[in-house]
Amino acid sequence: MTFPPVEEQLEVICRGVEKIVPEEELRKKLEKSAATGQPLRIKYGIDPTGIDLHLGHTVPMRKMRQFQELGHQAVIIIGNYTALVGDPSGRDETRARLTAEQVEANAQDYLKQVAKVIDMDAAEVHRNGDWFAKMDFARILELCSKVTVAQLLTRDDFSKRFKNEHAIYLHECLYPLMQGWDSVEIKADIELGGTEQLYTFMLARDLQKDQGLPLQLSVMSPILVGTDGVRRMGKSLGNYIGISESAYDMTKKLMQLPDEVMQSYFELLTDLPIEEIQKILAGHPKIAKQTLAKCIAGEYHSEQEANESVERWEREIGAGGLPSDIPEVTLEKSSYPEESVAAVDLLFDLKLVKTKSDGRRLIQQGGAKLGEEKTAIGDINQSIELVEGLIVWAGKKKFCRVVLK
Amino acid sequence: MTFPPVEEQLEVICRGVEKIVPEEELRKKLEKSAATGQPLRIKYGIDPTGIDLHLGHTVPMRKMRQFQELGHQAVIIIGNYTALVGDPSGRDETRARLTAEQVEANAQDYLKQVAKVIDMDAAEVHRNGDWFAKMDFARILELCSKVTVAQLLTRDDFSKRFKNEHAIYLHECLYPLMQGWDSVEIKADIELGGTEQLYTFMLARDLQKDQGLPLQLSVMSPILVGTDGVRRMGKSLGNYIGISESAYDMTKKLMQLPDEVMQSYFELLTDLPIEEIQKILAGHPKIAKQTLAKCIAGEYHSEQEANESVERWEREIGAGGLPSDIPEVTLEKSSYPEESVAAVDLLFDLKLVKTKSDGRRLIQQGGAKLGEEKTAIGDINQSIELVEGLIVWAGKKKFCRVVLK
Repeated sequence: MTFPPVEEQLEVICRGVEKIVPEEELRKKLEKSAATGQPLRIKYGIDPTGIDLHLGHTVPMRKMRQFQELGHQAVIIIGNYTALVGDPSGRDETRARLTAEQVEANAQDYLKQVAKVIDMDAAEVHRNGDWFAKMDFARILELCSKVTVAQLLTRDDFSKRFKNEHAIYLHECLYPLMQGWDSVEIKADIELGGTEQLYTFMLARDLQKDQGLPLQLSVMSPILVGTDGVRRMGKSLGNYIGISESAYDMTKKLMQLPDEVMQSYFELLTDLPIEEIQKILAGHPKIAKQTLAKCIAGEYHSEQEANESVERWEREIGAGGLPSDIPEVTLEKSSYPEESVAAVDLLFDLKLVKTKSDGRRLIQQGGAKLGEEKTAIGDINQSIELVEGLIVWAGKKKFCRVVLK
Repeated sequence: MTFPPVEEQLEVICRGVEKIVPEEELRKKLEKSAATGQPLRIKYGIDPTGIDLHLGHTVPMRKMRQFQELGHQAVIIIGNYTALVGDPSGRDETRARLTAEQVEANAQDYLKQVAKVIDMDAAEVHRNGDWFAKMDFARILELCSKVTVAQLLTRDDFSKRFKNEHAIYLHECLYPLMQGWDSVEIKADIELGGTEQLYTFMLARDLQKDQGLPLQLSVMSPILVGTDGVRRMGKSLGNYIGISESAYDMTKKLMQLPDEVMQSYFELLTDLPIEEIQKILAGHPKIAKQTLAKCIAGEYHSEQEANESVERWEREIGAGGLPSDIPEVTLEKSSYPEESVAAVDLLFDLKLVKTKSDGRRLIQQGGAKLGEEKTAIGDINQSIELVEGLIVWAGKKKFCRVVLK
């Protein structure tokens, strides 16, 4: 097997990566692989607890696809054994123990989603129950003897919890060892993940060394910021873009992105060359976001759908047209005996503003409008007649249609 | 089954015990046992790593025999599974991994020794490999989820090591859990051991509670001081009396005991009633030690042998007679070209004194003597002619015969 030149590979691998540990070994690994014609074995572990992937998850997965495109071997580990066990301490009710069938169904669902990013026809898939179900207590004790409590407590999350006197249960100490052992079993050359896993990645090296195997190195991606531009992308934070969302939903969310995070989205979520990204970012932010939306929506849908989504957005929202999907908000008639309401209260009751102060400010700035014709509300106390179907605007992008009940 | 009255049982059980935890539960356990006619299940765990039992080990074992005499059920756990694993961290070369055959041979040897104290015909014996060899990883994770790292670090030895930054390996954290699980398996009512095991004993209660079982309590014996009267009895400290030693060797060692430790030896190693012990201790220390020697040597040998040993000691050492087994010390002729040596140097070279200052003091006090006739050495520089077979005394109890080479 032949690979692109090492320099070229390094450029692809290092793009958008936060940390490579130990970095000096990467070139050697690639050179050895080039010399022997052996693809590197790239490990990525997933936890089949049943989740909908969002763009944040795709960052290390896209790195995996880049490795595949360079000719290396993707190895996906499904942590089915740990999922079977669940979190036995019972502290976290949401991580209940799953049945073998549920775990496998989750794994299949996960793999189907992963296939949107990784070329699964060329990937190996292993379930860690294949080796852990066979391990006896003696073997587990031996595995545990490779690590000390003090070492475990250097792990970021453990050290924080220990300092804050939050419980760390003993079984949790075994999870990083299990993940490390996966690397031994599949002879990983490189493991993908985030920097929060550095400890586990290094532990895997110790276990590989102990078994006389070549040591893996870790290629750690940064954490993707959510659409709020502040916190990491997460389902519970409501700042995510799911990879199963429609092209138009993706586009709408991407078009609202704060300008500052565009660069990382381009670097981490598209394959556009860095120089081209720089040029795009030097132009108008709206155009840049439209390019970004076309790239990302185009990855999960057709190019045509992506283009149409951007056009629709431009027509309905960007250029100020009336959107075709106006969210409806229901108001209780009984709460408005006079069948009218002060403008500032209306904005607040429709949840278009967070506080009445925000509402007052918006009205004073002329940003609150009514109807398809967008008639500005002139006074915070202006009495608005409540009629079914009334459209209310709070700025250009927030709006809703009133439903009375 | 009927038992002695609870008060009477309490008196026997509490004798010479350092701590009972939780103490208030003991009476209830005994009352319930009396009411239902069910003997209590008394657990004692042993580690078949191949050791010669000494009197220090017999303290909890004698407590077990007392429980047996009260009508309760002895349950011996042989930790064969942990012994098989050894200490896998490889830090302690002396705790090498044993083969199954070695472990079983050690266990048999141990049981033979234990039978000198515990009535093995009436005891249950379990090997913890019976349950641990069958436990899978998922079950072990579940077991580990019952305890937190912080709880483990409250264990005396762990907390000291953690503070001193000495490594605690993760497998060591599993050992107390395993020992605790033994209590679940055999449904222990009471566990015997030393106070250093308090943490493990309490952990066993947590695991029993978790399994909906009655909770064990622990009856903890104090640590027996060695024949030096200072440190705990231990083979490596050379201050021990092995239970396989001859009646005469036991007697000799017991007769050298510092007076202060006699009471604990009487309480912990004999069944003499406390009032009788008080009377004995009020008399002459030599007579008291002879009584102690007769009791202890008589437990491991016949009463006749014990009596004869004490008589022999009295004849040979106590009354100043010549002992029948004089240790030999070899001196190199070439180190003494003049075939003689200064008295103080002789004592030192024969290791009868630790320092030459000690030798000088001994000679000045008239404690250094020569030959069967015990001729006092008058001067520290007195020239002693080196002849084969010369007997040299340093006080009444230290002596040797010179061998030249």
